Amino acid sequence: MSAITRFFNPSSVAVIGATPREGKVGRVILENFTKRYRGRVYPVNPGYDEILGLKCYRSIRDLPEAPDLAVIAIPAPGVPEVLRELGEKGCKAAIIISGGFRETGTPEGERLENEVKEIALKYGIRIIGPNCIGIYDSWSGVDTFFLPEEKMKRPPKGYVAFISQSGAFASALMDWMAYNNIGVSRAVSYGNKVDVDDVDILEYLASDEKTRVILIYLEGLKDGRGRAFLEAARKVSTVKPVLIFKAGKTGRGSLAAASHTAALAGDYSVYKSAFKQAGIVEVESFDEMMDAVRILLDQPLMNGNRVYIITDAGGVGVMLTDALTSQGFELPRTPPDLREELRRVLPPHCIVENPIDLTGDTDDERYMKVLEKVLPRGDVDAVVVVALPQVPGIKGSLVEYLIEAKKKYGKPIIAVSIGGEEAVKIARRLQENGITVFESPERAAKALKVLYTYSRIKMKTTRDRG
Amino acid sequence: MSAITRFFNPSSVAVIGATPREGKVGRVILENFTKRYRGRVYPVNPGYDEILGLKCYRSIRDLPEAPDLAVIAIPAPGVPEVLRELGEKGCKAAIIISGGFRETGTPEGERLENEVKEIALKYGIRIIGPNCIGIYDSWSGVDTFFLPEEKMKRPPKGYVAFISQSGAFASALMDWMAYNNIGVSRAVSYGNKVDVDDVDILEYLASDEKTRVILIYLEGLKDGRGRAFLEAARKVSTVKPVLIFKAGKTGRGSLAAASHTAALAGDYSVYKSAFKQAGIVEVESFDEMMDAVRILLDQPLMNGNRVYIITDAGGVGVMLTDALTSQGFELPRTPPDLREELRRVLPPHCIVENPIDLTGDTDDERYMKVLEKVLPRGDVDAVVVVALPQVPGIKGSLVEYLIEAKKKYGKPIIAVSIGGEEAVKIARRLQENGITVFESPERAAKALKVLYTYSRIKMKTTRDRG
Repeated sequence: MSAITRFFNPSSVAVIGATPREGKVGRVILENFTKRYRGRVYPVNPGYDEILGLKCYRSIRDLPEAPDLAVIAIPAPGVPEVLRELGEKGCKAAIIISGGFRETGTPEGERLENEVKEIALKYGIRIIGPNCIGIYDSWSGVDTFFLPEEKMKRPPKGYVAFISQSGAFASALMDWMAYNNIGVSRAVSYGNKVDVDDVDILEYLASDEKTRVILIYLEGLKDGRGRAFLEAARKVSTVKPVLIFKAGKTGRGSLAAASHTAALAGDYSVYKSAFKQAGIVEVESFDEMMDAVRILLDQPLMNGNRVYIITDAGGVGVMLTDALTSQGFELPRTPPDLREELRRVLPPHCIVENPIDLTGDTDDERYMKVLEKVLPRGDVDAVVVVALPQVPGIKGSLVEYLIEAKKKYGKPIIAVSIGGEEAVKIARRLQENGITVFESPERAAKALKVLYTYSRIKMKTTRDRG
Repeated sequence: MSAITRFFNPSSVAVIGATPREGKVGRVILENFTKRYRGRVYPVNPGYDEILGLKCYRSIRDLPEAPDLAVIAIPAPGVPEVLRELGEKGCKAAIIISGGFRETGTPEGERLENEVKEIALKYGIRIIGPNCIGIYDSWSGVDTFFLPEEKMKRPPKGYVAFISQSGAFASALMDWMAYNNIGVSRAVSYGNKVDVDDVDILEYLASDEKTRVILIYLEGLKDGRGRAFLEAARKVSTVKPVLIFKAGKTGRGSLAAASHTAALAGDYSVYKSAFKQAGIVEVESFDEMMDAVRILLDQPLMNGNRVYIITDAGGVGVMLTDALTSQGFELPRTPPDLREELRRVLPPHCIVENPIDLTGDTDDERYMKVLEKVLPRGDVDAVVVVALPQVPGIKGSLVEYLIEAKKKYGKPIIAVSIGGEEAVKIARRLQENGITVFESPERAAKALKVLYTYSRIKMKTTRDRG
């Protein structure tokens, strides 16, 4: 088992600093491990014989085996000694949750962090942290996020991995994803990065079959790790998309990043072009980040940039046309043969020019007739369906059709739906079945752009290999 | 009573084409008028003596008075005759819902529309439409939106007016606003604009005390109405904000607009600079539109562009710093006197530099202590509070404090909250009390930019007058 694998899929875990005291970090973490995790769990605390029904060990020496993973949640000054004991016991992976190290800006914190580094090196222990929130793994049940479920819901099993330089942002993201029913494979926040960093995790995720999309929140890379990071990203991005949100882009922002994680946010233009070269897709806002994740999880890749819009709201068709065009998409004029076919199936007042406007008296069937003509065409790379549910004729059978059509034609089909309860309900049903839905035409266009950008990265790789 | 006022606040309404038949436009509209409207309602249809418990009139001639407003929902060929009868009766305002006019692109449609124009002119009847969805007025109960409530919810009484060149988009917006509990004063969609257009409505809304924010969805202005529109907008914007979303910005988009409303979307750069000169604030996406409405409804104006961030999540602080800086805001470095004051009330590990980072062990009180120091300062023009509810110490008393503080200090206070159920709950409570909440740092920054832009427009007016 590789050292990094141990962090995500250990067969045994020791929780150093486990405690029965409500609200304490050592309590929340131990409780987490009693929920989804199926391996052996060893609480370690000299003050207890039993915690939460588990036998508690007075010291690491007393453990019946070298744990695959140790989670350390005790005050900083005690950490080096514990780490030494873990080393003696033969443990090879530790997550140090505790703060009080270099991030304090004190000489004592600095000294403790260096000591941790040396001991880890001596015993060959890989370290995540210190001063971190660690790992959430929906598949193995590893969960060191020390926020109780009532404060932060856990996302369901799923296929997005994320790596966050900010622990608090990672927690907010977890809670958001749980609420929006987006499944997470592994989430990692590595704090001070004394050892394991973005590069190691990225390499692990490359071959992780539970991870289909990788999202990174990054303020800055460790000195000297830039090349390795880009190399790792280049490899991963040939297999699965790597999305990045770079914080500290502006001068003032990088100053804030320096206060936050002591990260050298560096010159953004350098990062930007490096990301591009490495096949990393950059996202520019929180919304774009989450929209990109959703579209990449759900949609097949695009063969080209030709998009058709089918709408029951002319205005939204115009908005979408602007938005898609601004993102560099081509909206082909409807060619004569298709125009003729559409004229045959549509009432005369409908507009057969792309955007195809079925107008406010449409029903579900009218959409289906048009989609049956549009989807099979070789000159159509994606379809955006606007079906405002306020239109009286829209009863909902379109939803089932879209779900089937996406499977049948293997092309991206996304939807724009603006409105209230009914719109939200329809969106949910579509989403659950792989049709990505957006409330805003502009967000739909931006997300589709991410899909197209990654499609090109992937195509290029395949071509280069061929 | 001015002609335009009659549309929004008539003391009597005739519904021509009223019918008891389920699902018909004339039924939905009549039903609307039995709900919130308090004036006299006259259904007109030769086939019935009574509809929905109201006495039905065989013809317009039979009506006991000239109605303040006539709503016409009969097939296009019958409209000219009805209009003539209305003219003879003395009616001065009509909304023609019926389609089948110029928008059909047929000579017959064109002819009918010209006839309508002539009759209206002859009798001095002001017309909204034809081919339109008309008016929703939450205060008077006028509601010609012919979508039943189960398809489109009605927003509550409130202070946003909107004018939409797209009827379907207007309906979607209504539904969206109802769902998001944003009150609407008047909503208008004018269809073919044979007479009443954006200019007339804008002039009416200028002195409408129920309207505090005006939102316009525009594809293109009628030939020769550009100057009048800008002149009207210039006047209104000295009193209340005018937001515009211009559709048909790109070449391809203006082509789509031409198919949709036959609007000459025109050269966008000309529109753009004209908007600016007229004090109209442009919004660039659906999200920005709704965020702008919310912030303008809730927040006082800004005296300058200096923003402080107070956060419990360093990462979100960095994201916000980038976003605000990119929008042109200044994030002052914390000055020495404030730094000292903050040091006195905060634990040493907190960061007193702006963004002020209270870190993940904060409680509600820590925020209050900081806000008490920051808010009264003359060199602080707005505060963005990030209080991720995942943080265990955040119990919620901050919410009440923020609501009071905003009243006390009269400065914009907005919040960023990312997460699940708890975040949504907190956001709702804050929103209901005038603290605008955003899920995304970037959207918060864009919305604040709208507020600042309008603050400058307003300041300039006041200065010019002084």
